[in-house]
Amino acid sequence: MQFISERRLDDGVLEREFTLGEIPGTLWTPESTTPVPLILMAHNNGLPKGEPRLVARARHSAAQGYAVASIDAAGCGGRPRSAAAEQARADLRRAMQAGEPVDEIFESFIGPLVENAVPEWRTALDALLALPGIDGPVGYSGWTAVGIRLAVAEPRIAAAGFFAGGYVPVAQREEARQVTVPLLFLLQWDDEGNPRQRALDLFDAFGSEQKTLHANLGGHTGTPWFEKEDGDRFFGRHLK
Amino acid sequence: MQFISERRLDDGVLEREFTLGEIPGTLWTPESTTPVPLILMAHNNGLPKGEPRLVARARHSAAQGYAVASIDAAGCGGRPRSAAAEQARADLRRAMQAGEPVDEIFESFIGPLVENAVPEWRTALDALLALPGIDGPVGYSGWTAVGIRLAVAEPRIAAAGFFAGGYVPVAQREEARQVTVPLLFLLQWDDEGNPRQRALDLFDAFGSEQKTLHANLGGHTGTPWFEKEDGDRFFGRHLK
Repeated sequence: MQFISERRLDDGVLEREFTLGEIPGTLWTPESTTPVPLILMAHNNGLPKGEPRLVARARHSAAQGYAVASIDAAGCGGRPRSAAAEQARADLRRAMQAGEPVDEIFESFIGPLVENAVPEWRTALDALLALPGIDGPVGYSGWTAVGIRLAVAEPRIAAAGFFAGGYVPVAQREEARQVTVPLLFLLQWDDEGNPRQRALDLFDAFGSEQKTLHANLGGHTGTPWFEKEDGDRFFGRHLK
Repeated sequence: MQFISERRLDDGVLEREFTLGEIPGTLWTPESTTPVPLILMAHNNGLPKGEPRLVARARHSAAQGYAVASIDAAGCGGRPRSAAAEQARADLRRAMQAGEPVDEIFESFIGPLVENAVPEWRTALDALLALPGIDGPVGYSGWTAVGIRLAVAEPRIAAAGFFAGGYVPVAQREEARQVTVPLLFLLQWDDEGNPRQRALDLFDAFGSEQKTLHANLGGHTGTPWFEKEDGDRFFGRHLK
């Protein structure tokens, strides 16, 4: 893991860009004299780790006393694009906007993306926990499909917050019942890109004894600000 | 309104029993030098206002800086019983436990109970807001059907937290879309006495622009303790 830049933000949070082999990442850490728990923050749908709303969320959590890390998935953010992936992403977007079935594109494109992202997150986890000032337990926040795979494969994940979850590859829908860590599942009731019933079915399927659903009125990007605080309190109950 | 007893609790909350004509009630108020907002706390299914879980919830909210009031509905708690109501309640319980349809008993028994409870809550609201140290805005917490009727009829209700909501009389299901105040709708995912899909349909029907659903794994009485805190934060956003 190589740090390539750093800056100190207004709220005292230290934001550092890093690379881990070919994987670019960002780490946000609070001013703290004792080790802090770690939250892995993953973003679906090819969003870059630098997307402003997501950065705001990461900074908010860091200011509450967490180390927060994000990496770009293959073909996303700062990583090389492939023409095939760009085409698949465009097809997916077009089909979703047209209200057409997207399961096939989803399986062939997002399925492998999820499978390939998880080993990268585990590599990042090893490197992050080796840093001074960062300690377990580890939380996960964001992209539902990667979170399911990671929570099943990775015993160091102690709690997870998932967002949306209307479209999740079949492999992850099937292994949802193997997820047993405490869960906070966040849903936008009118999410244009996430069928509500599928998301509710997924919430129902999780094997966790402690699982909480939060749903708010509005579309995909309309999550109210107080859910950031609710997310931090959820992690506070399980990571601190 | 006549106060008939009072005691100061460990957490500084003053608990006062009162009567308002034939209606018995309890008022919990925090130690405060400035007026505090009011939360009306109503309990469904004939529970007395003295039920320990409900008292714990009222005290918790009062300690957070709210005046909290509860009254017994006709035929419940400290009020005279009628043989007919006791029979209807027993029939309802037996049918629910047997998994039989309960809509008919529900309409004929709970429907009028809700209609009759709402004027009593409005009378209580008048009396409570006339007390020194209690100020608007007013929140409502608990029994879904009464809360719908009250939120539609009573412009002083500024925010409402509803619990369960699987069985709600047709009249209130129909007027749910007229509810426009901010809502927190709390659901137990495996509530044995509240069909999940009906509760979700009710959440969908509310006319409020700001509505949030919280669902947790477990049966009717299994709501996790942190939902008390979430409820106080919800009221904090809208009443303070």
